[in-house]
Amino acid sequence: MEAEAAPLINHLSLQPATNIFPTTTPFLAYQGKHHSCNLTVITNGKDEVHGTGVDNVGTTPAALATFLALERLHLDETKTDLLINAGTCGGFQAMGAAIGDVYLTTAVANHDRRIPIPSFTEYGIGKISSLQVDNLSKELGAKKGICTTGNSLDAHELDHFHMNQNEASVKDMEAAAIAWSCELHKTPHFGLKVVTDIVDGDKPTQEEFMENLGTAAKSLQEALPIAIEFICGKGHDEL
Amino acid sequence: MEAEAAPLINHLSLQPATNIFPTTTPFLAYQGKHHSCNLTVITNGKDEVHGTGVDNVGTTPAALATFLALERLHLDETKTDLLINAGTCGGFQAMGAAIGDVYLTTAVANHDRRIPIPSFTEYGIGKISSLQVDNLSKELGAKKGICTTGNSLDAHELDHFHMNQNEASVKDMEAAAIAWSCELHKTPHFGLKVVTDIVDGDKPTQEEFMENLGTAAKSLQEALPIAIEFICGKGHDEL
Repeated sequence: MEAEAAPLINHLSLQPATNIFPTTTPFLAYQGKHHSCNLTVITNGKDEVHGTGVDNVGTTPAALATFLALERLHLDETKTDLLINAGTCGGFQAMGAAIGDVYLTTAVANHDRRIPIPSFTEYGIGKISSLQVDNLSKELGAKKGICTTGNSLDAHELDHFHMNQNEASVKDMEAAAIAWSCELHKTPHFGLKVVTDIVDGDKPTQEEFMENLGTAAKSLQEALPIAIEFICGKGHDEL
Repeated sequence: MEAEAAPLINHLSLQPATNIFPTTTPFLAYQGKHHSCNLTVITNGKDEVHGTGVDNVGTTPAALATFLALERLHLDETKTDLLINAGTCGGFQAMGAAIGDVYLTTAVANHDRRIPIPSFTEYGIGKISSLQVDNLSKELGAKKGICTTGNSLDAHELDHFHMNQNEASVKDMEAAAIAWSCELHKTPHFGLKVVTDIVDGDKPTQEEFMENLGTAAKSLQEALPIAIEFICGKGHDEL
């Protein structure tokens, strides 16, 4: 979401980059350097198609923005080394998650693509391994776990069944789609997600989400610069 | 799906076009002429990311393939005049749908993007009007109705509630995402869909779908050349 990205963009003194996305898209990009690293922050912009002006959440904008950014960046001299999916998420208390926790994803999967035909079932779940970043998790004091993705903020009984089947610690609305686009480009990726609400708790997600979005965003804003400082200049196997 | 596109490609003597999609994608394109019209048929290819080899069904590949094709075609001398989303769908018998029916979409919407936060709710549903093609529907003897989109082949109780709220006559797994990418490019669009199974019937979708896919594909193969012959050379207001 736009508001969550602003502090990082300011902190790293990134500048708007207008040559990353076609003008047909609502997506935004900011670029700059940190030590020897070239950084690009992308956000999915606001909805104009439906005239709501809200953030373009969910899998389709996420897949498209990720694909287009990687495609454009690959035209430059170097391939993108790493994509970090930074954002908020729901957490499963049964898996040890609490509000404010920082999670690094070990894998992602979908819980709302149920296709009960052989092989299509596996495609629908679409599990993808994240880059394993154990040293980074120690540096951040972050937990690790699987992120399950669905296009709804709430979750019904069948969603809970499939999130459970995915062995998810956290839940979001984009991770599996972002990872899919990264895989098309063979770009390593992982998610750095902060818990705003408890999926298997008593409160309605939307209330808890709105209540904790501010503090979670702050927690994300603290963790991201530390992660970038730690990652920059290191090989993938040192992370 | 690949198998459904093959007869049309043969019928129109279209040739593979390798310059439409980046090599990073699984998508396929075929091009040719029919009278004065330039035609491009695109399919979403097979899944390599998850190693299943099945067709890339669902919203994320559909949104990405549509966006990339329109973006690439717009680099050529003329903009794309019209996009037809051709495929199979489920039908609602309560709305008068029967197996084998040909439907032209009047609008599309999502039923599995539930976001109970003001304005996000509307964004999630994401209703988009189709190009109205009343004369084409008379030419084809086709029914007209709203297509509701979700990433699952099956449907649970809450899906049924939201499909009903969307006033859907038919249900598929791509239409709303394809329409979203068309809207980004301001390209007029509609769906031409053939019913393979009854969503509000007794049989499990996957059984009925597999049983009727062959006859529905045949019905689609009959309708599409008639539609192309009718559309080619006409203005949008004559359709």
